[in-house]
Amino acid sequence: MVMQTLQIRLTKGLIEEISKLVTRGIYPSTSECVRDAVRRLITGTGKMEVPEKEVKEVQEKVAKEVEKEIKDQFQKPKGTVDFYPKEMAVRKTIFRKLMACAERYSFKQIESPAFESFALLSKKEGEEIRQQIFTLEQKGKESFGLRFDLTVPAARMFIEKQKQLPKPVKWFYLSRMWRYEAPQRGRLREFYQFSAEIFGSSKPEADAEIISLAIDALKSTGLTEKEFFVKINNRKILEGLLLDVIDKSKMDDAMRIIDKRSKITEEEFDEELKKAGIKEIDKINKIISMKDIEEVKKLRLNGVGKEGLDELNSILKLLKNKKDFIRVDLSTARGLAYYTGTVFEIYDIDERYRALAGGGRYDKMIEMFKGQPTPATGFAVGYATLSLLLENKDLIPKVDLGPDYYIAIIGDAKEKAREIIEKLREKYKVEIDLSQRNLGNQLKYANAIGAKKVMFIGPDELKQGIVKVKDMASGNEGSMKIEELQ
Amino acid sequence: MVMQTLQIRLTKGLIEEISKLVTRGIYPSTSECVRDAVRRLITGTGKMEVPEKEVKEVQEKVAKEVEKEIKDQFQKPKGTVDFYPKEMAVRKTIFRKLMACAERYSFKQIESPAFESFALLSKKEGEEIRQQIFTLEQKGKESFGLRFDLTVPAARMFIEKQKQLPKPVKWFYLSRMWRYEAPQRGRLREFYQFSAEIFGSSKPEADAEIISLAIDALKSTGLTEKEFFVKINNRKILEGLLLDVIDKSKMDDAMRIIDKRSKITEEEFDEELKKAGIKEIDKINKIISMKDIEEVKKLRLNGVGKEGLDELNSILKLLKNKKDFIRVDLSTARGLAYYTGTVFEIYDIDERYRALAGGGRYDKMIEMFKGQPTPATGFAVGYATLSLLLENKDLIPKVDLGPDYYIAIIGDAKEKAREIIEKLREKYKVEIDLSQRNLGNQLKYANAIGAKKVMFIGPDELKQGIVKVKDMASGNEGSMKIEELQ
Repeated sequence: MVMQTLQIRLTKGLIEEISKLVTRGIYPSTSECVRDAVRRLITGTGKMEVPEKEVKEVQEKVAKEVEKEIKDQFQKPKGTVDFYPKEMAVRKTIFRKLMACAERYSFKQIESPAFESFALLSKKEGEEIRQQIFTLEQKGKESFGLRFDLTVPAARMFIEKQKQLPKPVKWFYLSRMWRYEAPQRGRLREFYQFSAEIFGSSKPEADAEIISLAIDALKSTGLTEKEFFVKINNRKILEGLLLDVIDKSKMDDAMRIIDKRSKITEEEFDEELKKAGIKEIDKINKIISMKDIEEVKKLRLNGVGKEGLDELNSILKLLKNKKDFIRVDLSTARGLAYYTGTVFEIYDIDERYRALAGGGRYDKMIEMFKGQPTPATGFAVGYATLSLLLENKDLIPKVDLGPDYYIAIIGDAKEKAREIIEKLREKYKVEIDLSQRNLGNQLKYANAIGAKKVMFIGPDELKQGIVKVKDMASGNEGSMKIEELQ
Repeated sequence: MVMQTLQIRLTKGLIEEISKLVTRGIYPSTSECVRDAVRRLITGTGKMEVPEKEVKEVQEKVAKEVEKEIKDQFQKPKGTVDFYPKEMAVRKTIFRKLMACAERYSFKQIESPAFESFALLSKKEGEEIRQQIFTLEQKGKESFGLRFDLTVPAARMFIEKQKQLPKPVKWFYLSRMWRYEAPQRGRLREFYQFSAEIFGSSKPEADAEIISLAIDALKSTGLTEKEFFVKINNRKILEGLLLDVIDKSKMDDAMRIIDKRSKITEEEFDEELKKAGIKEIDKINKIISMKDIEEVKKLRLNGVGKEGLDELNSILKLLKNKKDFIRVDLSTARGLAYYTGTVFEIYDIDERYRALAGGGRYDKMIEMFKGQPTPATGFAVGYATLSLLLENKDLIPKVDLGPDYYIAIIGDAKEKAREIIEKLREKYKVEIDLSQRNLGNQLKYANAIGAKKVMFIGPDELKQGIVKVKDMASGNEGSMKIEELQ
């Protein structure tokens, strides 16, 4: 339905007062109380009596809040990251490696707007994701939200050119997205991902390509099989086995709870299953404890299960060269309902951090978004966890931001110096004095910014057609002919 | 004050009905009508009578709207751009050139979150910018908006580390931002800019560095003095001259209207000045028609004007090597109130498009954001206009997205082929079959994606230790020894 949102703004203090009235049962909800209050005001039909002392308390509370707010108002939003030059250079270096890897796999980079229609964003995971989407205040008719993953926009872009694109389409993203989270450690509101999708192949080759890319991309950052591994599963195997044990109506709940298994205790797991009305706990525990495909092969699988096993088997064969990275793990379910077959997650070897990456096959999404039915598979690597692991393994790339030359101009040589600077800047990173500082302060600055060499340009040297150059690491000084600079 | 927004969602059809009631004078506003309606519902105090025929009409109208909405809801938001692989590669190529140029100037890249506190965003240009900011629906206490430029977040980042950073700080950005605009041609809601700032130098050297970078960055894309030029001015000259003519209280209005001069007719210009209560139109026209610094030098300038002229003069001297690009133009004012001295704009030579770039000195902003007072100067180049001009001048970089090799596997050679593919992918862009297609269809695909060579791997060739390679441009075929592949 076409909806329109009206907005009402109130002070926090007043909202607290309203909450009290709601708690006392005078109003069923905050909204209703507000509506009634405004109505009373408009119609003049009496006013709610609030004791004067309470009013004063509220006023004081509000005054304190306002003071704090002014301090906070120019700060970086909580749960976001500023990339200063060094952090930026590190991220760019890591992203360049991931990008180069994706390109060798012949994936092509795309980018989409930061926001999408709310209808699109909420379609995949349902209305409840509204809590996690940063929605934009509506100005016109349109309702937008910031994207919370890169798969949804990629799917939209695919659908828009579905007819003319040669298939399969192999795309990747190196970009950021947003989720509303209450500020807490390690949960970012703005986060970066490397994400890749293949649209238009239902075959195990496509899944193998995706998993292979995920592994090689992580390897390109310096990580090896000693640092990370892939948990792989096929939802159909899990579904097939579960169907022999539980009722179909419990499937979604079971998947969701199995997905949480590694994050909760055995007791909590049992408890959650019980709460969902699933009693076959031992059988489920037995199923998800399987980590060996040979074990699975020995089971008598039903149709769905058999299909999943065949798919998994084909993928493992295709990934033979990468078998050191791969472990079958029937407890890997991926929480989201839209995965239809292969699912995988990548963890650091000690499983100390959250998943480095996750992905799988989602054959129904394009259809759900009103495209022509198209099979699809993909994955995403989160930058936050990846950089934590790289830091822990001392694999953060070393970046060097210092200029090649700092040019110190002595006396009246400004104009000629500019020619030399322009020439040098065709090839080198060159920093110059912008503050009319004396030589001592210029050298301090050159040192502070990590200049590799300082070039001295002065009238005496210019007459001889030379410049002096000091190497900042060795301290060695020498002179160079101006005509030979390049 | 701390405010909180409540949201109410209604169908468009109902909202139209409400509008009718408001038009009839039954309610003072839509909001009030909604509040009353909900209240009536809750309290059960009677209902508004609407004739049945009207209800049916509304229902039909709503049904039609819903159908249209479903079609629209999965579309790209209007006023935004999707970067498909080719457009992405073009933008990346252009951005790499701009980035390389900024790095040779020893500027360092930074990145900040997409959103900032609304208080920060609205501080610089006042509350009226709310109309143009995409604000986020408030979930917790914080009020956020999407950034509409890159200067404000850069200033915030500078302030946060102001004490420990060696000054001057030279930063650049290659990123995107957002402004709410009613959808129309050429006005994007999401747009990309190359932006650079220097914090911590009040000297003309810093302005010259900024203008020089802007020129060299554009040159790096292939543009020359035949394609673009810089209009430079100093607000102090303009202010000084205007102060001799108009009252100080009219200064902001005068600047704002002068800034619009090139976009409106002479009559409209005169009209706007008159409307603002400024009668000295001829004198103003004479001032802003000056395009020659020698002419300005001959004038008797007051203190402010003199200061501006000295600054302009110093900058022009420093930019002597770039004088072919530079024209003094006293009509260049830059609309925004925060510029304090040097201002400049860059246009294509025929002034066919909007400004390619704009910038200037803003010495009061850091202070305004509660940092230690710090002089600053900077500029931004918009990608949308730049790419229009590059297209017009046939300077859009040619990009080649085709893989180096397409690997066609014939018969039972899959496993051995994977070894070869992994080897090749260490160096080359390699595409493989992911769809179990027959050879004919594989070759069609290889052709469609622009593969440069096709490598055929089959059991017979493998026995001989060779692969066949076809060059797609020339059609030449040959064979290569597998051991020699690298």
